[in-house]
Amino acid sequence: MNIKDEVELIAQRAKESFYKLKSISKSTKNQALLEIAKELESNTDTIIKENKKDLKNAEEMGQSSAFLDRLELTPKRIHSMAESVRVVAALPDPVGNIENQYIHPNGLKIARIRQPIGVIGIIYESRPNVTIDAASLCLKSSNACILRGGSEAIHSNLALAKIFNDAATKCDIPKFAVQIISTTDRSAVGEILKLDRYIDVIIPRGGKGLIARIYEESRIPVIAHLDGVCHTYLHEDADLDMSKNIVINAKLQRPGVCNAMETLLVHESCAPILLPPIAEELINNGCELRGCPRTQMLIDCKPATEDDWYTEYLDKILSIKIVSSIDEAIYHINHYGSHHSDAIVTSDYNVAEKFLDEVDSATVYVNASTRFTDGFEFGMGAEIGISTNKLHWRGPMALEGLTTFKFVIRGNGQVRG
Amino acid sequence: MNIKDEVELIAQRAKESFYKLKSISKSTKNQALLEIAKELESNTDTIIKENKKDLKNAEEMGQSSAFLDRLELTPKRIHSMAESVRVVAALPDPVGNIENQYIHPNGLKIARIRQPIGVIGIIYESRPNVTIDAASLCLKSSNACILRGGSEAIHSNLALAKIFNDAATKCDIPKFAVQIISTTDRSAVGEILKLDRYIDVIIPRGGKGLIARIYEESRIPVIAHLDGVCHTYLHEDADLDMSKNIVINAKLQRPGVCNAMETLLVHESCAPILLPPIAEELINNGCELRGCPRTQMLIDCKPATEDDWYTEYLDKILSIKIVSSIDEAIYHINHYGSHHSDAIVTSDYNVAEKFLDEVDSATVYVNASTRFTDGFEFGMGAEIGISTNKLHWRGPMALEGLTTFKFVIRGNGQVRG
Repeated sequence: MNIKDEVELIAQRAKESFYKLKSISKSTKNQALLEIAKELESNTDTIIKENKKDLKNAEEMGQSSAFLDRLELTPKRIHSMAESVRVVAALPDPVGNIENQYIHPNGLKIARIRQPIGVIGIIYESRPNVTIDAASLCLKSSNACILRGGSEAIHSNLALAKIFNDAATKCDIPKFAVQIISTTDRSAVGEILKLDRYIDVIIPRGGKGLIARIYEESRIPVIAHLDGVCHTYLHEDADLDMSKNIVINAKLQRPGVCNAMETLLVHESCAPILLPPIAEELINNGCELRGCPRTQMLIDCKPATEDDWYTEYLDKILSIKIVSSIDEAIYHINHYGSHHSDAIVTSDYNVAEKFLDEVDSATVYVNASTRFTDGFEFGMGAEIGISTNKLHWRGPMALEGLTTFKFVIRGNGQVRG
Repeated sequence: MNIKDEVELIAQRAKESFYKLKSISKSTKNQALLEIAKELESNTDTIIKENKKDLKNAEEMGQSSAFLDRLELTPKRIHSMAESVRVVAALPDPVGNIENQYIHPNGLKIARIRQPIGVIGIIYESRPNVTIDAASLCLKSSNACILRGGSEAIHSNLALAKIFNDAATKCDIPKFAVQIISTTDRSAVGEILKLDRYIDVIIPRGGKGLIARIYEESRIPVIAHLDGVCHTYLHEDADLDMSKNIVINAKLQRPGVCNAMETLLVHESCAPILLPPIAEELINNGCELRGCPRTQMLIDCKPATEDDWYTEYLDKILSIKIVSSIDEAIYHINHYGSHHSDAIVTSDYNVAEKFLDEVDSATVYVNASTRFTDGFEFGMGAEIGISTNKLHWRGPMALEGLTTFKFVIRGNGQVRG
């Protein structure tokens, strides 16, 4: 079978499986998830054996140590994968929740009820834990899913998916609820993106190149996780210690992730006091600084270019700008930022409220680090990604974001006049 | 200025206006809407004068009488346009509603709050009332909007938009909150669809050709109103009178709209009793019938082809199929339908619940006509369209569908460990 036909068969089976999944009870789904968690742990040796094949190939291809670290599965990591499946099993399931119910003057009972979306296509890069996270969230929310992981993790992903499916079907989950694309041929992605007859949404997880390609090619709606050009703004009354803690945490606790800060904005009246000690601590921690002309007069740093304000470094680099007002700070964030996560440090009530109201981002903070933008931290138990879309879902996304709704209407013979 | 630059300037001004709109109070918006309603009525003569130019051009171009009817504005229609603006003013405004609020173990207060989306592009065909409906819903929900109506209604639309804007700016609504594309050059639509930097969502309203073009070209997310291939299924115990009323209403009360029935499914055990009298009534009302082979044995009708089951006639034509079970009916609806609005007639509790659960449509009915799928009927006061998307919003869409949310987080110095 050629790749086009193979992918189409998978998509068609996913759609059929979705219709069957709709009538599976919540307790069956939860029992299956617990069984999957158990089987992942029992099969630790098999998983590690397959993972070693991927690691060996990746080493031979000269991948970086950071890459190898993301790819590697250890008994501890497999245990934590299983634990996260147990967390998903314990989460409340939004399917069937009634959001709104009212009675039409003519007696029709109109209810808006949460429903699974259908078939979810997840296209991701090398981290094999995404296979299990995505499959469990989709199963819990009664969606069928098609997984296409990075070719570097193919042995690990196939082993994980097999264990997942063996345990699931043993617990009466319909066959083909979770399917993995087993070919590593790159054309498979293009074929997936054409199948809008069967697939309802594509969720890509990976670098800019992957996501740009998917946006360009997809005939299916995409919920993307794009850049995080996140800001912290220190208002004129910002406390030095709090500012320093938040800046250091937002920039350096994990610089390579989307909720790390990329630009620091400082009010001109407090900049002479706050910037030098904060800059010192950043530099001592190996961070490169790039400043606007006024920043360059206060601290030792490289000049920032116009491009810097748009850049997600994902590295120990920070751009710094001095602003003359809260309005200038908000304008900068809305204009140059990526509408992901932005914070203000202030003790002024009106300024804090203004910032929360006017910054047009998925997540806005007063007096906290932007690093909290995360499904687990937000109490969602897990996450399938952090949406930078404004439609459907915005910010950390988990079970509720994997649902849609329908209107259910009960009558006794009503017709429209 | 060329069309590309003109459209870009409009989009840029819309984005700037959106940021200003965010700080306009609910009472200012409502006062502006009431003023707009008043001014529409006071300017009835001007509107009718401009509308006559459009009618004259359309007549000269040989447009159909149905087309001319949709285009024509009368004092009564202008009054009802104004009344619908007053209804929008009186609706609850979802912006700022807190959907969910919880406290992180570390004390962060995390709230999910309804927000306007941003800049909405609405591309529609000849009905000028869409100009006012769309502009009022966008203003009420604090979104900026760009309107591109059909060229046949250009004089009417420009007059309506001017009255709207004059009244709005008099009431302190920011300039450029509502803008209309004044050129009738077709290339303007293509230019709009490229401006994903400024425009957050495109809502097309019109025929299949328009919507297909927009899906094909748009770099901006689209919320579309596509086909309504709607079904009514008469289960084995269906009452004859109720079945007949619902079928006649769903098919004939207004055949040219998306929530009208296109296919009738009948259980084999009741078909001999129900079909002949229902078919007689349909035929007496000028409806053409196309049946499956078993239907053809019971009533006088043309044969239905495979294509018929997929077709939205928007006309006095009905396809009819006899099925052997509720499962076959559900399969047919999910497979051939457009997931818009589908109904069952039954008095069997379990069958009704099964139908509501398993039919994967935006709106599912027991014992009622599919013609009720409509924002006004659903208590939303108005509608911007009926979404056939599964993401973001499904079914009749009004103010809530024009919003997104953001996470607002209040801390006192928290950093991530």
